[in-house]
Amino acid sequence: MEKVTLNVTGMSCGHCVKAVEGSVGELAGVESVKVDLKNGTVDVEYRSNEVSLDKIKEAIDDQGYDVN
Amino acid sequence: MEKVTLNVTGMSCGHCVKAVEGSVGELAGVESVKVDLKNGTVDVEYRSNEVSLDKIKEAIDDQGYDVN
Repeated sequence: MEKVTLNVTGMSCGHCVKAVEGSVGELAGVESVKVDLKNGTVDVEYRSNEVSLDKIKEAIDDQGYDVN
Repeated sequence: MEKVTLNVTGMSCGHCVKAVEGSVGELAGVESVKVDLKNGTVDVEYRSNEVSLDKIKEAIDDQGYDVN
């Protein structure tokens, strides 16, 4: 299991939290995802043999947020 | 037809716009609803014999925003 904390800009409210957690959480291989709205971070636990970090970043980007 | 501009606090992103426009727009008697995110306002055109202003404010409040 891998753990990563991504810095994500543009998340501003509870809807954004749901959008990010929903889209990342539905990826096969993602064990957990937690947004910290105040800090602008997304913690993800995932199995790197099932899903790539790029795929996770892409899911966030697709929701309209910038992953740094 | 009545027209009103409501001051609404807490709307921060496109999801909020959709939530407010969706909930107000589906009320019978509401002709149009337009959120101005930058100014924190919601313009509503409605038929006052079909829907009350209180009902419109309630719909916004129910989405988690404060109507002033």
